[in-house]
Amino acid sequence: MNYSKIPLAQTVAYLCQEKGISHIVISPGSRNAPLTISFTENPFFNTYSIVDERCAAFFALGMAQQLQKPVALVCTSGSALLNYYPAIAEAFYSDIPLVVLSADRPIERIDIGDGQTIRQKNVFENHILYSANLYSELVLDSNPELKKLAQKQFESKKHNEQEINYALNAAIENKGPVHINVPFYEPLYDRVPEFSVSPIVIKPKSKPIFSESDLKDYKEAWVAAKRKIVLVGVNTPNSVKQHYLDLLANDESVIVLTETTSNISHPRFFNCIDQLIAPLQQEEFKDLQPDILLTFGGMVVSKKIKGFLRDFQPKHHWHVDEKKAFNTYFCLDKHFEIDVNTFFEHFLDNTQKAKSPYFDFWHNIRNNRRQKHKKYLSEIDFSDLKAFEMVLNNIPSGNQLQLGNSSTIRYTQLFDLNSTLKVFCNRGTSGIEGSTSTAIGAALINRTQTTFITGDLSFFYDSNALWNDHIPTTFRLIIINNGGGGIFRILPGDKDSENFDTYFETTHSHKAEKLCEMHDIEYDSASNEKSLATSLVNFHNESKRAKLLEIFTPRLKNDTILLNYFNQIK
Amino acid sequence: MNYSKIPLAQTVAYLCQEKGISHIVISPGSRNAPLTISFTENPFFNTYSIVDERCAAFFALGMAQQLQKPVALVCTSGSALLNYYPAIAEAFYSDIPLVVLSADRPIERIDIGDGQTIRQKNVFENHILYSANLYSELVLDSNPELKKLAQKQFESKKHNEQEINYALNAAIENKGPVHINVPFYEPLYDRVPEFSVSPIVIKPKSKPIFSESDLKDYKEAWVAAKRKIVLVGVNTPNSVKQHYLDLLANDESVIVLTETTSNISHPRFFNCIDQLIAPLQQEEFKDLQPDILLTFGGMVVSKKIKGFLRDFQPKHHWHVDEKKAFNTYFCLDKHFEIDVNTFFEHFLDNTQKAKSPYFDFWHNIRNNRRQKHKKYLSEIDFSDLKAFEMVLNNIPSGNQLQLGNSSTIRYTQLFDLNSTLKVFCNRGTSGIEGSTSTAIGAALINRTQTTFITGDLSFFYDSNALWNDHIPTTFRLIIINNGGGGIFRILPGDKDSENFDTYFETTHSHKAEKLCEMHDIEYDSASNEKSLATSLVNFHNESKRAKLLEIFTPRLKNDTILLNYFNQIK
Repeated sequence: MNYSKIPLAQTVAYLCQEKGISHIVISPGSRNAPLTISFTENPFFNTYSIVDERCAAFFALGMAQQLQKPVALVCTSGSALLNYYPAIAEAFYSDIPLVVLSADRPIERIDIGDGQTIRQKNVFENHILYSANLYSELVLDSNPELKKLAQKQFESKKHNEQEINYALNAAIENKGPVHINVPFYEPLYDRVPEFSVSPIVIKPKSKPIFSESDLKDYKEAWVAAKRKIVLVGVNTPNSVKQHYLDLLANDESVIVLTETTSNISHPRFFNCIDQLIAPLQQEEFKDLQPDILLTFGGMVVSKKIKGFLRDFQPKHHWHVDEKKAFNTYFCLDKHFEIDVNTFFEHFLDNTQKAKSPYFDFWHNIRNNRRQKHKKYLSEIDFSDLKAFEMVLNNIPSGNQLQLGNSSTIRYTQLFDLNSTLKVFCNRGTSGIEGSTSTAIGAALINRTQTTFITGDLSFFYDSNALWNDHIPTTFRLIIINNGGGGIFRILPGDKDSENFDTYFETTHSHKAEKLCEMHDIEYDSASNEKSLATSLVNFHNESKRAKLLEIFTPRLKNDTILLNYFNQIK
Repeated sequence: MNYSKIPLAQTVAYLCQEKGISHIVISPGSRNAPLTISFTENPFFNTYSIVDERCAAFFALGMAQQLQKPVALVCTSGSALLNYYPAIAEAFYSDIPLVVLSADRPIERIDIGDGQTIRQKNVFENHILYSANLYSELVLDSNPELKKLAQKQFESKKHNEQEINYALNAAIENKGPVHINVPFYEPLYDRVPEFSVSPIVIKPKSKPIFSESDLKDYKEAWVAAKRKIVLVGVNTPNSVKQHYLDLLANDESVIVLTETTSNISHPRFFNCIDQLIAPLQQEEFKDLQPDILLTFGGMVVSKKIKGFLRDFQPKHHWHVDEKKAFNTYFCLDKHFEIDVNTFFEHFLDNTQKAKSPYFDFWHNIRNNRRQKHKKYLSEIDFSDLKAFEMVLNNIPSGNQLQLGNSSTIRYTQLFDLNSTLKVFCNRGTSGIEGSTSTAIGAALINRTQTTFITGDLSFFYDSNALWNDHIPTTFRLIIINNGGGGIFRILPGDKDSENFDTYFETTHSHKAEKLCEMHDIEYDSASNEKSLATSLVNFHNESKRAKLLEIFTPRLKNDTILLNYFNQIK
């Protein structure tokens, strides 16, 4: 095995290995050669080469989303690093561990006019768990005249080892992005056969033990309340024990509202929030207003539920999460800093259920809406809404479903999904820039068939995602191409003007076919119900190449069909 | 004309107009609707729609590079903004004025779990001239119950007006990027027929007047010195008066070294720095070592001149620039904070010339190198070096030449360019991520034929640059496709391994043809001397569409041919 001759590069790789960080996404460069050598020459690491750092970071994010442990990114000095920022912000808000390892020039070379040199120190300050700014270490053995610097070198080395440990631990303990900036002196490409460092390894902190006595008052309030909503945001699949879900489902004073990205399901849960909420009138909102709102999981997609709970606030909002609690509805009064299973173990077992008509009343309304949903869907023309119904119904059980942002996730939320699907979407920042790259990273790790649905703007935005040698043949990409940002037609604002088309909807006539030819992906398209049905027949079958299905929908009809939907399901 | 109903949106647009900022690049979104309406409905503004914010920012950078005045960028809230960062860092180090206008949610909606919401305040802190963080303004007339807030509103309004003025003035006075973060309450799409604001306009500061008395000592030192180097980095074309260039050229104690991006030329200037420096031995460096180094212009590409001047430091390094002076050679002892023409007016006119053999000695060496350059080029196989010679010789006089980073700019520096070409390259951060977008923005403004030369990695990295409705038919794009990052073969390091190919050179087999079909660009390719000669015959002729010429060069031969070049020109 070969090692970089630079001890700091050895130290970084060694500590990554010690902490079980084995997937490393590398973008090309020269300054990062010591890191690239350290990772690619060591068989412990799985390394991936991605040129566009924006895609590289989202690809790593998708991997870490599946692994639920850190994936590392390696880039050269200069602006390369800045292209990571959209994915870093997403990781920050989605609690996904990512480790950015940026090579840098030594500090005395910053702001003196050297090429590919910027102010990398703390550059992600607004959205990072930890920024470790390392010192460059001289390779003393080749510079005997510098031996007098040995003491300073020793201190730098200890500083560096500690900072690397702290940063990696932060990513592991608090699940989020960290940045380790690693300056190197030249020469950068020298290798040695022997490993020469033995850095200190500081273990991540273990979780604090939960004390049950705190819960007493909250349990009493819970039992006393007749109207309780449990609202579940983003969750990884299988993260909540079925037993607790059953307890919640069978409490008639409780309504459980689940988002598509919550990855929990139960026949008695309300899984299409907007379908329930959108048609309600002022008086009905009052009937739905809960006494207690209990939330867990990450970000919530539905704007309608947010609007409702802000206007009709519960008396109490309690959030369960080890790390953080957002005051989304402006009435948060308790953050249980604990994982959700431990919480339910102490909170729900042996807790009485309240008598209440709450569940039954709303369950009837929900069932009514479902009937009307079916009826409306059977009558409408081919459109975004219809295409989503057909596509979603066709996904094989057990598939992973990755969703683009904007229209894609919002349409999907209207459907009663196959509960065996595992659903993911970048809801931390809800950006459109890296969904394809994320889905590919996730597909690579989860090894099951992964279906990714995206809108056209989001797809073309991240077209470099396909510049990736690791796309599994099980990857299935579906573009709902409505010729622009269809969501803008649904929002208020003047729609019959050239300015609207250009600056809001951003209309275009691009198709994905040429990109598929360029990147060796099997391409098919459909533009009506019949051709879509035909295309879907074999779409999920095994294949030798990844497949992309582009569905063209009528740009000018989609918004009316969706807006009528909300009227028709009343 | 229509105006956004939100006064703050009117204020932002009004102040842009007052300060002559007329080009606005808009990316789609909803939160930024008030700004989009304000700019697109006002005929004073030229507005452009670009979906990918990374491309949008480089496109705006290219425009501002030509205009030498600010271009504004408008985006929605959330991660959209972060995609601007690579271009912002480039603008920061290249002294190009850019105004980022990011829409935001009101401050109380940050970090409470709302979608598309991040910490936008000061997010570019490391690389920005000014960050204006505005307060959201309520639309009081539609909310009569809020009239009691009128005083607070008044203070917010005054704060906002002042901050917008300061930010725009910073971009104008100090030529660089500024960020104005503009939070809006909903509703976002309402329009009114009447303009309702009258913001204060604070004028940019005028330049301080130069005092000549400071120069006396420096002039004496200059006249006394027998060996002086004037080194010129990035300059806009025609920025230095010919009279001063003549005075420098005809001083036999002065060697003027110009980079390709300096846009100044004179038969007696040394315009191929690496050709001169690369073959020198230790003793010869001593002969070249200057007493005084006078520099002006921006970043310097040549690593070889940097290495030489750091190892053989002049007694004095003086830099002339209104804004900043980098201590690139670790011996800067004077920064003349003045524009270069004013400096020369006071410094060179009526200043004696020193007797010295310095110029003649090196001029002979240069002429010798030129002969050997010609001879070597006439003998080599088809390769990157040969392709650059053919391409550069063929560019029509008066063309604008935009260059990609990495190999492209370094190869180009080896050639004696047609002095009528105007040359640009993103040397602020020397990134590869936005060169195509920059070139397109520049081509749109300069209206002359623009030839852009780029490497393959840089081209595919910025492939979304072609998703742009404003590419002029005069645009000419040349890709030197050597199947990967050819520059890495020139750098040291093991080259005969799979890891090298994958993680350093990043080999690939992509071609640009499909992208051209997708984006309606005329495509041609060449892969040997003969076919390239044929392709070049009509390449620069007028056409109905922009043209792209992809030149395939032999990946494994390029590095040897270049490295031999430096041996052969000795």
